[in-house]
Order: sequence, then C-alpha cells, then structure tokens
Amino acid sequence: MNISTPYYAVIFTSTHTENTEGYAEMSAKMEILAKQQVGYLGMDSAKNIIGITVSYWKSLEAIKLWKQQSDHLYAQQKGRADWYNWYNVKICKVEREYNFNASDKFANKL
Amino acid sequence: MNISTPYYAVIFTSTHTENTEGYAEMSAKMEILAKQQVGYLGMDSAKNIIGITVSYWKSLEAIKLWKQQSDHLYAQQKGRADWYNWYNVKICKVEREYNFNASDKFANKL
Repeated sequence: MNISTPYYAVIFTSTHTENTEGYAEMSAKMEILAKQQVGYLGMDSAKNIIGITVSYWKSLEAIKLWKQQSDHLYAQQKGRADWYNWYNVKICKVEREYNFNASDKFANKL
Repeated sequence: MNISTPYYAVIFTSTHTENTEGYAEMSAKMEILAKQQVGYLGMDSAKNIIGITVSYWKSLEAIKLWKQQSDHLYAQQKGRADWYNWYNVKICKVEREYNFNASDKFANKL
C-alpha cells in the first residue's frame, strides 16, 4: 500500500459451511460497497482451508462506519446464518511496512 | 486466538514466481522454527492469486528476533532470489478482536 502509516487493518479469518448459495455475489457486492466507504484504503483476500480477508482503513471511525453500513449489516447476518462456521475479526493498527519487488533487482543494475 | 490484546500481527502478502523448487519444504521448515521462537502465538495462511500469511507475536521484540533468526534470514534471501515477485510486510498492533461460532447458536438454545 502506498499509504503512510499508521493506518488500520481488519484481519478477517473464517471457515465456511457447505452452503455457498449467494456467497460469491454478496462478497463481490460488499467489495464494491466497501470501496465507496469513507476511509477505505484497500483489501487483500485469499482462501484455502481458511479464508483470510484483510481490509485497510484510514481510521477506527472508518471501520466502525463500515461495520454499521446497512447493506453490510445484512451481509453479516446472512454470513452468520448461512455461510460461516466460524470467523474471527482482529482490529489492528499498522505501525510500519516495507516491500520487496523482484523487478528492483534489475532496476538497480541500470 | 485466546490471547488477550494487545499483541502483534505481521501481515505478509506476496505474489510468487513460477519457480516453486524448494518452496514448500522451506515454508514447512519455517513454520516449525517459528513455533519454537520466543513470543510466537500462531499463524494463519491462505493462497490464491496472492498469498497471505499472518503470524501473531507477543511483542515487537519477538518479531525482530524472528526476523533475525539465522535459518529464517537464509529463507528470506532464497525467497527474494527465487520464489517471490513481490512481497509486502505490515507490522501491526492487534488492538481488539471478536469471534463468531456457528455452534454457539445451538449451544445458546440448550
């Protein structure tokens, strides 16, 4: 992320039920809505045995507003009723970060 | 995690090269070694287009010691030389967390 620290990360880890009906559509819809939220900075997501979605936010207030967003509240209810066996949410302050880019190895030789 | 906050999380996101030789073995070895480190609390990992590994630590000092662990230093070098196109490391303070367990829905009805 090209954002200066500190900012905030929400680490969402989950395991899914066998019921996937409507999940992909809801997930895509929530990603679109999150991008429209005040303070939204980005998102990383991957899934094998567990799913991990990390979303990034400018402030704790921005996270709270997204948690309370009405369509998102409905998605949370559906998630608990149908899609998730378990989930965990961690609210984190990103204190610092650094990157590695393989292409820089070549760029440095120029 | 059954750990009282605050503790620390390292969010490692990456994209891989096509060279996977030795990666799985190194990854498994590093997980074993991390578990032996002072202050190690746990790890979550998933991979599709990007890989996300989040490791959890008691303190910033524990994270620093793991970063400097000699076998891990070698793994980092190999990763930059062979396995990763790109990675990003975020050092985070986990301020609070909460869980959902589907099984509690039934437990609450007893």
